[in-house]
Amino acid sequence: MAFFPASLETLIDKFASLPGIGRKSAQRLAFHVLSLSDPDARAFADAITEAKASVHCCRICQNLTEGEICAICESEHRDRSTICVVSEPRDVLSIERGREYNGTYHVLHGVLSPMSHVGPDDIRVKELLVRAAEEEVQEVIMATNPDTEGEATAMYISRLLKPFHIKVTRLAYGIPVGSNLEFADDATLNRAIEGRTEM
Amino acid sequence: MAFFPASLETLIDKFASLPGIGRKSAQRLAFHVLSLSDPDARAFADAITEAKASVHCCRICQNLTEGEICAICESEHRDRSTICVVSEPRDVLSIERGREYNGTYHVLHGVLSPMSHVGPDDIRVKELLVRAAEEEVQEVIMATNPDTEGEATAMYISRLLKPFHIKVTRLAYGIPVGSNLEFADDATLNRAIEGRTEM
Repeated sequence: MAFFPASLETLIDKFASLPGIGRKSAQRLAFHVLSLSDPDARAFADAITEAKASVHCCRICQNLTEGEICAICESEHRDRSTICVVSEPRDVLSIERGREYNGTYHVLHGVLSPMSHVGPDDIRVKELLVRAAEEEVQEVIMATNPDTEGEATAMYISRLLKPFHIKVTRLAYGIPVGSNLEFADDATLNRAIEGRTEM
Repeated sequence: MAFFPASLETLIDKFASLPGIGRKSAQRLAFHVLSLSDPDARAFADAITEAKASVHCCRICQNLTEGEICAICESEHRDRSTICVVSEPRDVLSIERGREYNGTYHVLHGVLSPMSHVGPDDIRVKELLVRAAEEEVQEVIMATNPDTEGEATAMYISRLLKPFHIKVTRLAYGIPVGSNLEFADDATLNRAIEGRTEM
């Protein structure tokens, strides 16, 4: 018993297929789209096709870009001897926000995850090895997330990089700046003690 | 400092403009859309334009439909002497799910809300009065939500319908079926006692 018109049902289905959007939210979103003006709805649809058509991965670092090479890889001000390896394009944004890091990136587009059948061939590891072999890379910073899969991926890649005699480092673990010891979990606190630095 | 390609930023903006979708969720949704196959992304965009182009309001009850008149208004099996007034198209779905009600509907597309500057001219009240005058309506059931605005809207419309000498009723308040007295709030419990029926 579908009581919504077919094209509305289709739209609801499309929204419901997005990650984290349930049936009810999908309905709400679809109703919202119907309430948009014609040009606004048109613009929404166009934004999808445009983004899909023009965004692809940078030939070098695999980050998302509209050109052949992304702005960071193209920039003359970036230090090409250091590559920061992240799992997702949004992680590049996070690190850039800090305005500290001046090297280049490599986006894996995922992490190794045997549970979800994601192996080394499903993420951009090969492309990293090519760069390690070709470019004058001196250091690779593993900046995957500090969870099990991110950790395993960092470990795996660092082993692959061994033969290249490149320095491989990992982001420091510790208590977040501005945080409170009281709220730090045991694992983080232990890592903060292990990694203590001289003052 | 936008580090995402322009067309991706546009898509993120579009998603972020949807109700209940924050910046982070919008990013996640946009990345998901980019990960779709070309035909799937195309289908998503098409679903928006198709729904927008073909869905409009039923000439009689204002419910969403693709034809001129919706399936319920068109059906010969529905009792045209009773109109159930709801605020949103999804409420029609909720009541239809009960499979009890056999009358027709009237969708207001909103409720009176002075705080959000929604007055009687912004919802489909006029269309209801036209029906009350023209059709052989004997009863109007006010099925707006049991909150302040829904209540005020029901009250307002029932006064407008006075001159037509039509029976105007309101959905019963009480404890939900299958629920527990312990979890019922005071207002609901009081209404349930007021509205008690003989066994």
